[in-house]
Amino acid sequence: MPSNRQDISHHPSPLSNLGEAGIIELVRSKSVTKNYPNVIHAIGDDCAVLKFTDKKDLLVTTDTMVKETHFTAQTLPADALGWKVLASNISDIAAMGGTPRTAFLSLGLNSKTTTDFLESFITALSDLAQKTNIALAGGDTVETPCGQTITLTLLGDCPRGKAIYRHKAQLDDDIWVSGRPGDAAGGLFILQEGLPSESAQHKTLVRAHQRPVPRVELGRALGKSGLVHAMIDISDGIAKDLGHICEQSRVGAILDETAIPITEDLRLLGDETGRNPMDWTLYGGEDYELLFTAPPAHRQALKAMVCQNSDIPIHRIGKIVSKPVFSLVGTEGTRDIGSHGYSHFSR
Amino acid sequence: MPSNRQDISHHPSPLSNLGEAGIIELVRSKSVTKNYPNVIHAIGDDCAVLKFTDKKDLLVTTDTMVKETHFTAQTLPADALGWKVLASNISDIAAMGGTPRTAFLSLGLNSKTTTDFLESFITALSDLAQKTNIALAGGDTVETPCGQTITLTLLGDCPRGKAIYRHKAQLDDDIWVSGRPGDAAGGLFILQEGLPSESAQHKTLVRAHQRPVPRVELGRALGKSGLVHAMIDISDGIAKDLGHICEQSRVGAILDETAIPITEDLRLLGDETGRNPMDWTLYGGEDYELLFTAPPAHRQALKAMVCQNSDIPIHRIGKIVSKPVFSLVGTEGTRDIGSHGYSHFSR
Repeated sequence: MPSNRQDISHHPSPLSNLGEAGIIELVRSKSVTKNYPNVIHAIGDDCAVLKFTDKKDLLVTTDTMVKETHFTAQTLPADALGWKVLASNISDIAAMGGTPRTAFLSLGLNSKTTTDFLESFITALSDLAQKTNIALAGGDTVETPCGQTITLTLLGDCPRGKAIYRHKAQLDDDIWVSGRPGDAAGGLFILQEGLPSESAQHKTLVRAHQRPVPRVELGRALGKSGLVHAMIDISDGIAKDLGHICEQSRVGAILDETAIPITEDLRLLGDETGRNPMDWTLYGGEDYELLFTAPPAHRQALKAMVCQNSDIPIHRIGKIVSKPVFSLVGTEGTRDIGSHGYSHFSR
Repeated sequence: MPSNRQDISHHPSPLSNLGEAGIIELVRSKSVTKNYPNVIHAIGDDCAVLKFTDKKDLLVTTDTMVKETHFTAQTLPADALGWKVLASNISDIAAMGGTPRTAFLSLGLNSKTTTDFLESFITALSDLAQKTNIALAGGDTVETPCGQTITLTLLGDCPRGKAIYRHKAQLDDDIWVSGRPGDAAGGLFILQEGLPSESAQHKTLVRAHQRPVPRVELGRALGKSGLVHAMIDISDGIAKDLGHICEQSRVGAILDETAIPITEDLRLLGDETGRNPMDWTLYGGEDYELLFTAPPAHRQALKAMVCQNSDIPIHRIGKIVSKPVFSLVGTEGTRDIGSHGYSHFSR
């Protein structure tokens, strides 16, 4: 990792040399300096897990969305932004098997932002909060010389000792994914390319990007069931987020290309545009679907449990294997998945 | 910012028309839509207060610092920024009579930010966290096209039912302030004017701006004592923050100019520069001293208690009276204090 200690003449090294992972590692190295009795699990998962009551653990997550980095006025108008900044945090709680409870909103706004914008933003955020029974209990409002910069911190809880982590995947686990991964990336493509969005098919994809529905009931049922080893939400794409599970669990993975669900809407968009829809599904982010691993012995119990508790389908898409394999097996043979998905500070 | 609904017939109204208070009111009106059993006190105080255990309530606060709005590279170098973003949140917990516990950091950084900057920032933040026994347990790191935008969310707790609010000041209460209010504004003046900062006197003032020490022990002792009615930390200046207490408690205030402490360092700076140091003390922010009200009957008990629990002096500077009086009584007569201090989105 390049740092200022590297060379004598001291040319200041920009963060782009360090990359997102290097930055997080630097912050982590300086921050976890001793054990705190109230912290069960800190940096490195979808949520931190803190001690709460005799029956519950506290979950805390925080996500920031920056204009021009995470969105533009074209991809996320005000209402979609309000919805999504809360949805992305709810999804982090869902990925730990928890229930979201209380939100804190930091609004960085330009003085030229309109009152209309703020009204649309907060109305949509409030809509989702009400639907998911979340209280917006505080925050901060500041002026920024730049585009909107929104940070939301969400508190939730899960039954004590029942949080599902990224680092617990085991050899031979099945890899499962929920719902319609890839749809959000298809929707983003439509918005970025300025394709017409009148058809029901395009609308479905755009909605997956702008109004994603986090999988709270599913996550909670999976957490409660005790059938699952590791879980993460897909915010950066299947490849990158499965990569996090593999890295933290010190295992590898093989995905079965034919088992990865490609929705009819996404397949049609691929046909229209000459793109391979599998790229959206593997490498597109912000679906807020859940990706999890579970022992093969739990296959039937898992399917039955999910049917009972949720109307979101789950798909078995691969297996956990030994390191360093990280491959996709398809009709055209085996290839390395790679873990490229969205990364901050990459060149 | 023009939204996609902007059209000719509709002239969008910029947020600067609404002002910071209007924005907060708009957010509040859309967000508190029903009672949540886990929320004891939401938006409008230094912290939100949530249900926690049988013995404790949970305190949550969040603060954002934006380059060019809250600081410049000249007023807050990286280490001072790291210290201060945590200090400002600790101060919010202190102002409720609580103990800070767990921090979550959202770092919005430009890709041109140097590794040196990040190291200095996180080392200073970590220093203060260790001194105050706070765990940095999570966060988010994102790239921004603008200057640094840092949001820190801090969790703490206080004995159940013992949080001190802004809205409980009562008629005839004494008004008290801790420590050295105004020093931070004097330090900021030195930095902004580029005055030499070698003298011990200037160093003390600059340090008050760059390395403020939040009054955790004092706040906790005041909270525990049961002697105090209302409390706030001075982040926007005595005038504005006392204004918050008065507004929320529906009372007025009279301050005694001769009782308001002006430190020797600040008085000297006033002499050197031809400024009235009282302006820094009344209208300068970011001191993170505590301002609180208590019944006159508790005067002696309060002083004794503070002597025992803290080495920070407290000063009795005025009285709570009926609305709408908000005045300063001095040697040159009585004048309205006004409540001008820093306000976002003001023209």
